[in-house]
Amino acid sequence: MVIHSVYFWLSDGLSGEDVEAFRKGLESLRPVETVATIYIGTPARTEPRPVIDASYDFSLIVLFQSVEAHNLYQTHPLHEAFVRDCKKYWKKVQIYDTEVPVLA
Amino acid sequence: MVIHSVYFWLSDGLSGEDVEAFRKGLESLRPVETVATIYIGTPARTEPRPVIDASYDFSLIVLFQSVEAHNLYQTHPLHEAFVRDCKKYWKKVQIYDTEVPVLA
Repeated sequence: MVIHSVYFWLSDGLSGEDVEAFRKGLESLRPVETVATIYIGTPARTEPRPVIDASYDFSLIVLFQSVEAHNLYQTHPLHEAFVRDCKKYWKKVQIYDTEVPVLA
Repeated sequence: MVIHSVYFWLSDGLSGEDVEAFRKGLESLRPVETVATIYIGTPARTEPRPVIDASYDFSLIVLFQSVEAHNLYQTHPLHEAFVRDCKKYWKKVQIYDTEVPVLA
């Protein structure tokens, strides 16, 4: 299984409508066929610690059955439309891809 | 729902036994009662890109039903034992806590 975790820092000076358009862009990724599960979130209200980075604005955590399923997502028209239409809204993105052995 | 994502960079010069001890330490967290799901992984074989950080050694992604469930995990004896016994194995840790609205 692959967990594709994406953290977005939005551009400065966005309007509420811009942020909503960005959030809808994230939501538009849900129907991608190779997505097993998709979580769209914001920083949690856990106690601040130096090792926690809570400076991002949105997270997108997507679970796939395989690296191949992840690769199909990257080139899926919905994902390409999201990047094309929404990249103007973020100033920084940080990604961690993790492979998790499926337990027997 | 809260997703607690932890990325570990292990210390230099660890033996294979040390790495195995660290991995067992991660596995020791599974029985914590407030954990909904736990994923233990390593960097995935996705295509390298500048926005992807694949320099970590292990990831620990834990799902909780609430911030309160996360807080109970932090002070759980199994978690405290893990930190006490395994912190010698890592040189850096980076955490992202994300709150995900539960869909109706």
